[in-house]
Formats: sequence, C-alpha cells, structure tokens
Amino acid sequence: MAPDRLTAFTDGVVAILITILVLELKPPLGDHFGDILDEKGRLLAYLLSFVFVAIYWVNHHHLFQVVHRIDGRVLWANIHLLFWLSLTPVATAWLGRTGAKTGPVATYAVVLLGCAIAYTLLTLALLALHEAESQLHQAIGDDRKGKLSLLLYAVAFVLAFIEPWISIALFVVVACIWFVPDRRVSRTLQSST
Amino acid sequence: MAPDRLTAFTDGVVAILITILVLELKPPLGDHFGDILDEKGRLLAYLLSFVFVAIYWVNHHHLFQVVHRIDGRVLWANIHLLFWLSLTPVATAWLGRTGAKTGPVATYAVVLLGCAIAYTLLTLALLALHEAESQLHQAIGDDRKGKLSLLLYAVAFVLAFIEPWISIALFVVVACIWFVPDRRVSRTLQSST
Amino acid sequence: MAPDRLTAFTDGVVAILITILVLELKPPLGDHFGDILDEKGRLLAYLLSFVFVAIYWVNHHHLFQVVHRIDGRVLWANIHLLFWLSLTPVATAWLGRTGAKTGPVATYAVVLLGCAIAYTLLTLALLALHEAESQLHQAIGDDRKGKLSLLLYAVAFVLAFIEPWISIALFVVVACIWFVPDRRVSRTLQSST
Amino acid sequence: MAPDRLTAFTDGVVAILITILVLELKPPLGDHFGDILDEKGRLLAYLLSFVFVAIYWVNHHHLFQVVHRIDGRVLWANIHLLFWLSLTPVATAWLGRTGAKTGPVATYAVVLLGCAIAYTLLTLALLALHEAESQLHQAIGDDRKGKLSLLLYAVAFVLAFIEPWISIALFVVVACIWFVPDRRVSRTLQSST
Repeated sequence: MAPDRLTAFTDGVVAILITILVLELKPPLGDHFGDILDEKGRLLAYLLSFVFVAIYWVNHHHLFQVVHRIDGRVLWANIHLLFWLSLTPVATAWLGRTGAKTGPVATYAVVLLGCAIAYTLLTLALLALHEAESQLHQAIGDDRKGKLSLLLYAVAFVLAFIEPWISIALFVVVACIWFVPDRRVSRTLQSST
Repeated sequence: MAPDRLTAFTDGVVAILITILVLELKPPLGDHFGDILDEKGRLLAYLLSFVFVAIYWVNHHHLFQVVHRIDGRVLWANIHLLFWLSLTPVATAWLGRTGAKTGPVATYAVVLLGCAIAYTLLTLALLALHEAESQLHQAIGDDRKGKLSLLLYAVAFVLAFIEPWISIALFVVVACIWFVPDRRVSRTLQSST
Repeated sequence: MAPDRLTAFTDGVVAILITILVLELKPPLGDHFGDILDEKGRLLAYLLSFVFVAIYWVNHHHLFQVVHRIDGRVLWANIHLLFWLSLTPVATAWLGRTGAKTGPVATYAVVLLGCAIAYTLLTLALLALHEAESQLHQAIGDDRKGKLSLLLYAVAFVLAFIEPWISIALFVVVACIWFVPDRRVSRTLQSST
Repeated sequence: MAPDRLTAFTDGVVAILITILVLELKPPLGDHFGDILDEKGRLLAYLLSFVFVAIYWVNHHHLFQVVHRIDGRVLWANIHLLFWLSLTPVATAWLGRTGAKTGPVATYAVVLLGCAIAYTLLTLALLALHEAESQLHQAIGDDRKGKLSLLLYAVAFVLAFIEPWISIALFVVVACIWFVPDRRVSRTLQSST
C-alpha cells in the first residue's frame, strides 16, 4: 500500500495537536500593553508544545520521503505515535503552570519517552518492509539518534524525582538533536540522484 | 468519480474526532507525580475513544485501497458513517465517568450499532458500483465480519439492561475482530499483483 | 491554476465546521438510558447543522468534478462561501435552543441566504473561467436550482416575522432540492465519456 | 523534496486557525432578531481574524504555485509563519473586546509584524533554493510589497502608544495591499505558458 493517506491523516491530526493550546489562550482582562504578561505562562507552554510537536512532524516528513510502501502494522505504529503526541499539549500545560516540579516533569518525561518509543517502533515496522539496500535503511542506519533519545528520556524520568531542572535540560538536549532532521535523509536522497 | 476527495475529507473529520477528547484533558491541580491519577477516568475514556475511532479509520483505509469509483450515494453513505463516528467520543466520555451502568452502556451499544450499520451500508453502496469480479467483491466476500458485528452489538444493547459488564465484554470482542483489518484486503491486493 | 489545494483547504474547513457542535455535546448527568433525552435539543441541533454543512460539501464536491482551472477571484469566492458556512452551526444552536421563534429563524434565513449567494457567486466566478462548451457550463445550465433557493430564503426571512414555522418548512424544501446533487454533474460527466 | 506535504499541513493548520473564533460565538440569550447585536463584538472580531488569516492563505497558495522544491530550512520557516498566524485570533479577540486601546493595538502590531517577518524569511528560504531565472525569482522580484509591510507594521506599533486609530488604519492599508495577491505570480505563470 502507498503511504499517501497515512501521511495526510497524520498531517490532519498534527495540525490539530499543534494548535490545541491556542484554544487555552485568552485575551488579557486589561487594555495595557503590559497586560500581555498575564498570559506569559500559557504563551510559553503553547510555544514549547508547538515546537515539540513541530519537531516530530518535520522528522516524520523527512522519514516518509524515503518510504515506498506501508502495511497494517505501520498504520497502527503510526497511530500509536499520534496517541503519545496528543498527550504532549496537556503535559506541557501542566509544566507551564507549576514550573520545574517533580510531578509535571516526570509526566513530561513519560510522554516524551512514549513518543520516542513509538517513533522507534514505527521506524522498525518500516525497516521490516524495505530491502536492506533501500534508501530507508541507508538513511536510518543503526539509529543512534533514536537510541540516545530513549536513554536520555529514561534518565530524565529518574532525575525528575531528584532535581527536575536537570531533566528539563535533558529535554532541551534531545530537542536540539532532532531539530536538524534532514542530514541522514537528505544526504541519502542527494547521493541517490 | 474518483474517491480522492472523499478519503481526504474523511481523514479530516476523523482527525478531529480522534483528538476531540484531548480538549477535555486538563492538567491536575497539584504538582506531584501521583496527581496524574486524578485524571485517570478521562485518560481512559480518551484512550478507548481513540482506539475505536482508529479501528474505523484503519478499516476505512483498507477498504478504499480496492475502491476505484464512487457516486453520490457513496458520498452520503460515508457522511452517514462519519455522523455516527462523531458520537463515539461523547458516548465514551459518559461511559468513562459513570462506569458500567445501564444508561451509558446501552447508549454506547446504540452508537456502535449505528457505526456498524453505516459501515455496512457504505460497503453495499460500494459493491453496487463495482463488478462481481472486482478486487472489492473478492475482499469483502459475504461480509461475515460485518454481519457478526451487527448481531453482537444488538445483543450487547439488550444485555445492557440486565448485566452491563457482559455488554462491555462484547464491545471488546468486536474491537478485537476488527483490530486486524488487512487480511481480506491485503490478501486480495497481493494475489492480484 | 489547478483547484487541488482549494478543494483540500475547503475539506479541512468543512471537516471542522461539521464537527464543531460535537464539542457542545456533553454526557448527561445521570446514568439511566432515558437521561439521554436531556441532550435532545443539542443532539437535534447537531444533526441539523451536520446535514446542512454536508449538503454544501457534497454539492461543492460535485461542482469541482467539472472545474479545470481557478484564479484569485475563485479563491476569494470560495473563502466567502466558507465564511457563511461557518456561521451555520451557531445559528442552528440558537434555533435548537429556542425553537421556532422570530429571532433565530430570521437569523437562520440570513445565514442560509448568505451561503446561497456565496455559492452563486462562486459558480459565476467559475463559469467566467471556462469556455461556453465546457462541462461546467453544461452542468450548471441556467442554474434554476440556485435562483430558486435565493428566492425561497428571501421569502423565509420575511415570513420569520409573521409565522416562523412556514420559514422552517421552506428551509426543509431547499434542503431537499439540494440533497440529490449529482443529476446535472453526473449526467454531464457520463455523456462526455 | 516536493512541497506537497508542506502545503497540505499548512492547509490543515490554517483551516483550524480560520475557524477557531467560531468556537467563541455563542447564540444570544433572547429570541428576538435584534438580540444578535449582543454578539456584534465577537462577530466582528471573527470576521477580522478570518479575513487576515485568509489573506495569508491566499498569498501562500499563490507563492507555492511557482515553488518546485523545498528543504528542511523551508519547513521550519513555514512552521515559524504558522506560529505567528496562530496568534492572530487571540490578538483579534482582544482588539474586538476593548476597541482601539494601546494594549491590544500594539499587541496586534507585534503579531502582524511577526507574521510579516516570518513570511519574508519563508520567501528568502525559497529563493535560496531556486535559480535566479526561475519563475519564483521573477514573481517575487525585489519584494517591495514585503518590505513596505514590515515598515508599516513597525510604524503602527510605535503609533499604538500615541494614537491607536492611526495604527488600525495602517493595518487596513497593508491588508488592502495583499488582498489582491495574484498579480506577480499569475503574470509570471501566464507569460511562461
């Protein structure tokens, strides 16, 4: 089966998730320019959640550039990823309100770990469908980025009970790793043309 | 007419339905990790509704792999299915809050029966448009899965007034039947290539 | 320019509009099957609004089967239609709550008149871009359906101040006229193949 | 990489943003036709926000008619634009409630300036990917419209602290400049065929 409808559906779900926290933003009560700071916490939570979901979308976009076929298992692996992604906004909202406390930081680590595991499972389901010499196999390689992320999120979960700020620093580190997504895929795409 | 726009529209509506209960999820009031259990009911309702809508999407996706043309009747049959699917989240939310009581369980059975009837009508409208030797006819066959689902949901509705837990067990049975969607369609797709 | 992205965007907006009233549906407070009747008004309003938006989507779908090119004016005519359609849910919600009173019925007539005028303008913008012997011109003809709808909605608006029930009857009449959308377009499509 | 999925995702996000303020529209409490005026402020805010987002969508649509390839930088430039666009509805809602006060008008200027800068960055990222003699370069030219908009929004921000009405007038001026989007692109498209 071709991946067209899977990507279209993913785009629809992500479009909703990326904008869900906008619904929480309310105009401030006053009419001074400084009143906008009343919404600081929600704005920041929105920005964070927006960036995290966007990073996944951009990487999903790149991944599927080299995907040529899918099956039922890939569909479910993708829906599983969407489920974990859909929890990001509410986890971010909690974090945005309380700041660096154990509860929201540990929850955030669980949600991000869920997303990372789901992304890894999706990658494995796709690799199983493509030949060893395919563009996909060359682009993914031994998936060091994926494995490192899983490890860092697990560490961040444990540290949330000791010093939440270190966990947050680890989230930022993983985000930076994935912010530039194209290297592997674009290198493969270029070298094959 | 080609089915492209029908599937795109369906994906859009399903993307919204599958995420609607996310809007109900609120971060807990406290900041301990255990506070997340306050949202247990809503999280579970969200998960249930997500899975049910996803099962329909995956099956719809597979069905339309072997659909080559549509008409006005198919459009309306599809919109009818979307209407019933759109009631799943609110039915799940009721069930998630009250637990296994007659009211929500019977309502849930009605909504699922509506979805199943709508899916059957969509299948029939599609079969009428395709030749007897088409991939679609081979994939659907005598539609035992569809007929069995209708029967089980009707039984579940009646049992909701006697012992709601048995009805819930029946919902799970039908979900399992449809969880693996691809057999019929993928077998047909493979044998034809 | 090709109409692909215009139709995709329309599908996205309509998918949201058609499901917006779902957000208003809340599970009843009790846990008896009869408690569902507490939500009767909202359910009915949802059904009505769903059907009205669906009728426009189905007709839009058929119309664009015979559209081969668009321009900036068509884009804006289409966005204008989407604006009026987006007011349907809130107008229906008002009607659903108060019943056949002058205020909501007259408002409903205004919104439906706005939709009908916008659809007519869209048709005219499209006709101006296609040759006289095109499928589009054959399918639209002298647009008696469109003109009749405009007339009936205008009459319904006036009657809302005298006897709202007659206005509602007129809404139903127009809905029936457009419920079967395919005649003109499908006849043209078939005769050309 | 081809721009298909980028435009599809953009359409999804814009479809949500353009309809978000609909969720704020509630039917009036009474049942007289005049009661609709109670919702005047929200209706006007909805209309304004709808038009602003629509103007960006139409221009984005035209821009991508002459885009042939994208890269990771373009993806992020586009997501950056979507972020600023997503703030338009809430800024409009504030403006709609308080009227021409310094706070909301200055905020509005900041959001529109953010959109304009993001659109300019997107244009630059696209120009860097296309040859000097491409349709895109001919269509954009020296981008006087873009530069003028940036200047006017910056002036509007400063004037919001002196006389907010002049800022609002400047917003309208820029909207008019972009309302007719097709000149540059359609001229280029026509001359090349």
